[in-house]
Parts: sequence; structure tokens; C-alpha cells
Amino acid sequence: MYVRNCWYVAAWAHELAENQLISRTVINEPIVLYRNKVGDIVGLEDRCCHRLAPLSHGRIEGNDLRCRYHGLKFNSSGACVEIPMQQAIPPQARVRSYPAVEKHSWIWIWMGDSSLADTSLIPAAVGLDDPHWTLRSGQMDFEANYQLINDNLTDLTHVRFLHPTTFLTPESFPFYAPMVERLDRGIRIWRWLPATSTKSPEKICDEGGDLWTAYDYLVPGIMLMPTVNVAFPKGTAERLGGGRPDVSNGTGVRGTLTSQAITPITDHTSRYFYSWGPSSGEGSDAAADSLLALAKTVFLEDKEMIEAQQRIINFDPGRKELLFGSDAGPVKMRSVIQHLVKAETAAASISSGKELHFAEHP
Amino acid sequence: MYVRNCWYVAAWAHELAENQLISRTVINEPIVLYRNKVGDIVGLEDRCCHRLAPLSHGRIEGNDLRCRYHGLKFNSSGACVEIPMQQAIPPQARVRSYPAVEKHSWIWIWMGDSSLADTSLIPAAVGLDDPHWTLRSGQMDFEANYQLINDNLTDLTHVRFLHPTTFLTPESFPFYAPMVERLDRGIRIWRWLPATSTKSPEKICDEGGDLWTAYDYLVPGIMLMPTVNVAFPKGTAERLGGGRPDVSNGTGVRGTLTSQAITPITDHTSRYFYSWGPSSGEGSDAAADSLLALAKTVFLEDKEMIEAQQRIINFDPGRKELLFGSDAGPVKMRSVIQHLVKAETAAASISSGKELHFAEHP
Amino acid sequence: MYVRNCWYVAAWAHELAENQLISRTVINEPIVLYRNKVGDIVGLEDRCCHRLAPLSHGRIEGNDLRCRYHGLKFNSSGACVEIPMQQAIPPQARVRSYPAVEKHSWIWIWMGDSSLADTSLIPAAVGLDDPHWTLRSGQMDFEANYQLINDNLTDLTHVRFLHPTTFLTPESFPFYAPMVERLDRGIRIWRWLPATSTKSPEKICDEGGDLWTAYDYLVPGIMLMPTVNVAFPKGTAERLGGGRPDVSNGTGVRGTLTSQAITPITDHTSRYFYSWGPSSGEGSDAAADSLLALAKTVFLEDKEMIEAQQRIINFDPGRKELLFGSDAGPVKMRSVIQHLVKAETAAASISSGKELHFAEHP
Repeated sequence: MYVRNCWYVAAWAHELAENQLISRTVINEPIVLYRNKVGDIVGLEDRCCHRLAPLSHGRIEGNDLRCRYHGLKFNSSGACVEIPMQQAIPPQARVRSYPAVEKHSWIWIWMGDSSLADTSLIPAAVGLDDPHWTLRSGQMDFEANYQLINDNLTDLTHVRFLHPTTFLTPESFPFYAPMVERLDRGIRIWRWLPATSTKSPEKICDEGGDLWTAYDYLVPGIMLMPTVNVAFPKGTAERLGGGRPDVSNGTGVRGTLTSQAITPITDHTSRYFYSWGPSSGEGSDAAADSLLALAKTVFLEDKEMIEAQQRIINFDPGRKELLFGSDAGPVKMRSVIQHLVKAETAAASISSGKELHFAEHP
Repeated sequence: MYVRNCWYVAAWAHELAENQLISRTVINEPIVLYRNKVGDIVGLEDRCCHRLAPLSHGRIEGNDLRCRYHGLKFNSSGACVEIPMQQAIPPQARVRSYPAVEKHSWIWIWMGDSSLADTSLIPAAVGLDDPHWTLRSGQMDFEANYQLINDNLTDLTHVRFLHPTTFLTPESFPFYAPMVERLDRGIRIWRWLPATSTKSPEKICDEGGDLWTAYDYLVPGIMLMPTVNVAFPKGTAERLGGGRPDVSNGTGVRGTLTSQAITPITDHTSRYFYSWGPSSGEGSDAAADSLLALAKTVFLEDKEMIEAQQRIINFDPGRKELLFGSDAGPVKMRSVIQHLVKAETAAASISSGKELHFAEHP
Repeated sequence: MYVRNCWYVAAWAHELAENQLISRTVINEPIVLYRNKVGDIVGLEDRCCHRLAPLSHGRIEGNDLRCRYHGLKFNSSGACVEIPMQQAIPPQARVRSYPAVEKHSWIWIWMGDSSLADTSLIPAAVGLDDPHWTLRSGQMDFEANYQLINDNLTDLTHVRFLHPTTFLTPESFPFYAPMVERLDRGIRIWRWLPATSTKSPEKICDEGGDLWTAYDYLVPGIMLMPTVNVAFPKGTAERLGGGRPDVSNGTGVRGTLTSQAITPITDHTSRYFYSWGPSSGEGSDAAADSLLALAKTVFLEDKEMIEAQQRIINFDPGRKELLFGSDAGPVKMRSVIQHLVKAETAAASISSGKELHFAEHP
């Protein structure tokens, strides 16, 4: 179940050099990416309309892409502009084109109806070159459906059990249920990070107080974690029983910043893109390096659990979960996705003359 | 096709240390095993009821098991006894519990209706610590359905062709069809082991005569091979044309002892557990070692053939076999299993209010 | 979709030594091959009728083959001639026999109705021992359906794009569409090889002129490439715009010779057998070696593209191709195969008393 009318992270921008073709699979669809002569990203179906060879094995010619098997040439809109040994080019000779944009150091691709592609819907991730932060980046593949990773990231209560010696002090962590607000295309999660109990990357710059902080999680799986938190005297979280504080009593502090993106490759594999780092004023390069090393250790613990969870699910795919109040994050995020998918399906069914609303082939 | 109301060997007892969790798959079901504080075996569904994470990644707390993902705690009967950040525990918060027993050096698990679990049905295998035998043990995985291994072990006529240089002398082996008796939950196979023709492990202690001997094969795939045989003068088997002798004319001799168990992991993979050895009075440690080494060589020949047979079957799974009189062992053993499965299915269909008779979830 | 009533290359003749059993899979069917006492090839179903064990794990006894699992013995027509511990041999005790012939250094096997097996239908490949040619040979497996390789070899227009630095000069190749004639069981492809533009193996002996040349492509996937070409003055191809020349104006020249065969192993794997070499008078051993090295480089480029094409097709197996005039070779060859398959299906449906026309079991 995938939202189509949204932006997926297909790659880090630095993965795609000038005059290079890279092949990526997003929601089970093969895509070839390259840069045109002015550096803009072109995203085409990685499947020649002629004999279904991968265009990513071809070569870039100016702004166009030539198939290396029998030589058809396509322009950046996917239209075939040359067929060797033939003058006429039939209108069906084209491949699907995907709107693609480089922004915030990522290459974003729109998997739905091109006419609805709206760059203002690209989530406000922070690029690696942002002067306010010293960021480090990485990526990791999971043998698991992307929803399991979304579930993981929208419910950080697992940190206490899965990462007790990496993110947290070994002692029992005074955990409070987060508050989850629904956004237009995602959710916002408010939560306490009590002062002494944690060595979380997010606490690297704190001042010994309890932090009341939020992060956003947006479709299809984009996590934007805080730039500015509100600090309270140590013990406030406990005194409020984990409840919402009066933020006017707190002090804004800069924390660390992380942007993360989950992209479904196939139904059973996903790619995880992430950056993390301290603010430029507070954190050195060494701090940024050690922060990313810590994050990677933690992510590998997540990967091990999530891949094992997927294997368990595969034993009996129809098995139902039993959800509790603490699952508010995953439940609301899944609901956002279901809602958008449902709306797209409804829109597709009233769009006559097209098999699916996002179909582009004439 | 699996009998559920019976004991399967899940592991060697020495595989499961104190304060350790191990994950095993039996008839396609994921199971986690651990020992409670007094050393008894606990067998639970290896799938948290919350978000389906494997409990085998969790940790033991006293007699209980805590999920490492979000912290639910289960007691040894599978009931959830703690949900972090929540007071109420709904009755559905439980995982299936499997009766599990350590006996004869194996961990046995009951895959069916817990209320029918009867430890008197555990086959009389002989444990590694039995003072009468000097036993060695091993295990081996097969990429094959367990029935193919049952077939192999209930029809030892293959020894002449598959193991001519390992178990037998290179010369043609005067083989006689065995006699197969049906037991309550298995079969008993009587057969001749003529004196000079063999270097079979079972003959290590013989006295030059022909042996008339039997072994039992019990559901789901437990082989218990002779402790005491009846010896006759050399040539008796040939004189009787392989027929049944008058046992009152023979002499009891101790042979070697082997206990073996086949456990279906999935439909296409199986685990083979085995021990073998001479009687304590007759065999040294060195004899026990060389006996196991010989057995392992022979089992690897079986494994190669059976896995190849499975691959051939996979080409055309509907292909029928052509069975002869010499297939009495496999045919009767399959019939025992079919009969028990049929009885369970019938019992399940009259058991109202439950999807299957062995279902435990309320 | 496979033609059954035709000869498939199962192996190189030199792969099958005296007193050796080899197992091969052809169009998803397991086959065991061996030589009888006078060296003729025997091809049997590699699946014992008893318990479905592979006969290729057995042993040759004179002209017969004995199963190594339970000892059934089959003669070279597939009839069981011995069942251990049993006198009577039921008529169903047999395995399918496949007509098999060694010719032109290959072992050919007939996958259809034995009564229709006609050795005159074996394509006129050239054996490695032919005195007129200095041939070298090889083989390669593809993770792709055989039709994709047939497509590749019946449409050499891909050479210009896929092999520009191996087969061809880097400069743009003046390519002309080939002419395709339908044969009884295949196609003949006529084409120009202009003089200066190529370093194709076929041009190794040319004399600087344009060659007008043909090769045959026969079911199921046998390529026989020219022995004698017709040479014209350089520039003739361009002057005729790639059109058919008046062959009486040309001069016959010997080129190189290649025989190639594609054999479907399964629906998704294929084996490629090939030989290539100069004529004995013109080419040295060194020339033959370097020619094969070049061919192998080129075939690896094909393999990379075709396997990638197969993976792309697997994303969406229902996706239709868009074919052009230049696809005449593949289109006609596929049509030949479809036609033969259709004829076989029709013949099977009117053949009463048999499940399929090619079924041999009584």
C-alpha cells in the first residue's frame, strides 16, 4: 500500500554524478536517474518501450538517454526521439517520466500523477550544506517492508528496550507516553527527554534540564527531528507525570538535528537515508562524527529487530497485531497513509479514460 | 501433513543453557525455548502478540520473558503480565504456549492441543547419560520434507545400494525383505542382519552369527534401534530364505544402540538428531567415536540422495511413485501418520467455538 | 512455450565420457545421459519411477542404468528390468526415454514424441573436428528465458550499440536493416557487413570489400553462421542503400564459421553453446584462440544486458513490447516457434488415449 502522489527520496544527491546513470527501484518500479546539461534531475522508467531493456545500461547524449541495446533515444520527458533505421516514431514510443527534484541533499521523485507534482510538498529536511548544522550522513538497506520502519520511528518507546546500552543509561528509563498530533500529511510527536537518564544524541547539547521536544513524521516516511527544544528544570517531566508543560516557562535550546527518510524499494525491502549532527556553533566535527557512529550502532540494532520481525510476520502474514495506547504514533501514521491511498484510489476510479489516475501513457 | 498431537524433538537438551533463549521452527511454527528458574523448559510462540516481534530476541526475567522491542512481559504460560505505560492487560494479550519437556537428552515439544499433552507418549529414546551405553550424538539439516527421511529410515533396503562401501562389504549383500508390524503410533520392523556380509555399526559386537533384530519407528519420525538382538548360527537367514525364525532357538546378544529423530522445520527443511554407541560393557570410547564417524558418513550419503530426490520431486510435485512390496515400511508409516492427521481433523471439526482443536487463544 | 518435437543441444559430446552419468535439465525436465557399450547416447528421465530419486546418482551396468537408492535397473529404452526382492515387474515400471544422438560434437536430445524423432531434422552445425575449420568452443549460462537470447541472435542490429568497442570500430557504424526469409523450421537472415567499419570476427579473412552474407537460425535456437560470403567492392552496401545486391557480380570468399545453440534449462535459465573459428587454410591456431576470446567478451556483454532485461521484465511480466521493422528477425523466429507449438498442441488434442501426444508412459 503506497501513496503515489508524494515525494519519495530516491537517492542522496551526491550519489548521482554528472554524466552518470543510476538505477533505483521505488515502490517496485524501476527508475533510471541522470542529470541533464544544466544539472537538473531526470527520472525515467528504467525500461525501454521497445524490448524492455534497462535504460540505465544506456548512455547520456546531451539531455537525452539512448538505450544501449537497440539504440532508441528518449528525451527527458520520456518521449522517443530516435529509432535507428526508421523515420517514423509512433506516439506510443515513450517511457514514463517521473518528476524528480534535488533538494535538501536528496533526490526526490514523485511516483504519482505528474500533473499533481507540487514541490511545495517536499518535506523541509535540512541539507548537508546547511550552515547552521554540522551534519553527517549515511544509508542502510532493510529486508523489511517500509511500514515496519515507519512504525519503529513513530514510536520511540522501543528505545528503552531495544537500545538500553546505546542510546540510554543502563538504569531504568523514566519513560512517558508521547503525544501525537495529526498533521496534513503526517503526524507530530511531542515527548519528554528527561535530563539524566539518557545519552541520546539529541542530548549532546542540553544543559542538564528536561527537554520537551517534538518531531514530525511525514508521508511516505520522512522524519524531521528537532532543531529547537524547550528546556525545563530537571525533574519537571516527572513532576508533570509526563504531561504537557507550559512552554512559556521553558527555555529554547538548540539540540541536534536529524533528517531521515524511508523509501520502499519493493514490498519486502526498504532503504533508509539519514543525516545527523550538532548545531554549528556547539558541535565540532569530532562531535558530529561520534554522533553518527552512535546513530549507526542504534540503527543496526533496529535493523536486526525489524528484519527479524519481518521474518516472523512471513510465517503467517495474516496474523493480527494487538495494539495499545502507546501505539498512537504508528496507528495515526498508518491512518494518514491509508487515508491518502484511499483518496487516490477514489480519484482514479472517477478519472475516465485512464486505467489509473497516475498513468501517463497515452 | 503433520500430526499435531505428538511430541517433536525441538533440540538437544545441551543446546539450551541456563538463562538462554533459543529460537526453533517446528512444522512451520516459530518457537522460543528457555529454562525457568528450576530448569524446566518453557516453550512459547516466538511472536509477540503486540507487534509480532520475535520473543527470542528478548530477555529472561525470572520465570518470565520480556520482548526486547516494546517491553511486554509474558509468563511461562504465555500470558502477558506487563505492558509498559499501561495498567490494564487485555485477556487477548498472550502468546501460545507449547508443552515442552526435557527427556532422554532431548527437548520435546507438543504441537497440538495442550490439554491432550501426555508425557507417557514420549518415545522411549535413550539419553546420552544412560549408564548402559557409550553414546555419541550429532545433528544434521536436510533440504527436504521430513517424509522423505522417514521413508529412508523405515526402509533400510537402500543400504545395499546407497551405502555399499560404508555400511556393507563391497560384495553383493544377501538382502531379505523386512517384516513390518503396525504399532499404536508407529511401526516395528523385523529384519535379518546376516553375519559376514556387513560392517554395519549394529554388528560391532556380534559373535559371527546371523542376527534377527527389530527397530521401532514412531510418530512423527522417531527411530529406536535395537538394544538386544537374537543371534542364530551363521547361514540361518539364508536357510530360512529371509523368513521369520523361531526366536526360542536363538541367543540374546547386546548390539549397539541408536536413537534418532526427524523434525520438520518447514515443508522443505528438516532436522535430524541422532545418537549411536556400543553398550558400556563392550565398547570403548574409541569404538563409540568411530561408530559415530561411520554413522555420519552414512548419513551424509543419505542427505545427498534425499536432497537430490527432493529437487527431482520439485520439478513435478504431482508425479506419483510406483510402490512395491519392499516399500511396506514407508507405506505403513505414512498410513499411521495419515490416520492420526485424519483423526485430528475430524476431532477439530466437531470441536465447536474453536477454529482448530489445537488452538489455544481465547 | 517450447517446441517439443525438435532436437535440443543437451551437452557438448566431450562433456560425456565413457561410463559417466551426467544430469541435464532441458525445458524443465530432468534428464540423465550416458553412453552404452558401443558409445551411443542414452537419454532417460532422471527420475526413478519408484520413489522419484535421480537416476543420475546411480551407476551404469553394461547398457543399463541402476538406481542407487533402491536398486531398480532400467535398460536403455527406459524399461525396468530388475526390481530387488521381487520377481514380477509391472509394465508401469519404466521411465521415459528420450531419443539422443551425438552429432557435430553436440549431444542432441528429442523432447517430443519419440516416434517422430527424425535425425534428418538435426541442424547442420559443424563439429569441432571438421577439417575445413579451426574451431574453438565454449559454453555459458544465462539467468534468462531462452527467447531473449533468440531475440538477441536473430537481430544483430544490437551489435552497433551493445558491442561498439568490441565487435565494431568506435565510429558510427553504417548499419542496414537485414532481410529475413522464413525457412521450414527457422529463418535465414541476409545482411551487409560493410568493409571498413568493423572488426567483427566474421571479417577476419575479408579482403577489404563489403560482404553480403547470411546466417540461419533454426528451432529451438540454433545459429549457423556463414561459411562462404559474397564480397563486393567497398562502398557497394552504401550505394545500394543496404539493399539486396546482384550476387552474380560478387566474389565468394570464405569467412569464419560459428555454430551456436541455445537450450532452455528452465523458464528462467538457459545454456549457450558456441564454437567459432577461421577456415583451416586461412587461420592459425592463434587466430582461432583470439577469435574465441573476442567472442567470449562479446557474449559476456550480451549476457549482462539480457539478464538485466530479464530482471526488468520480472518487475511487470505482462508489459508489452513495442516492435518495429528492425525486429523482423525476432518476430519471424518467434512466429516459427509459435506455429510449431500450436501444431503440436492441435496434434495432441486429437490424439486420443494419451494425455499429450508426446507422452510415452503406457
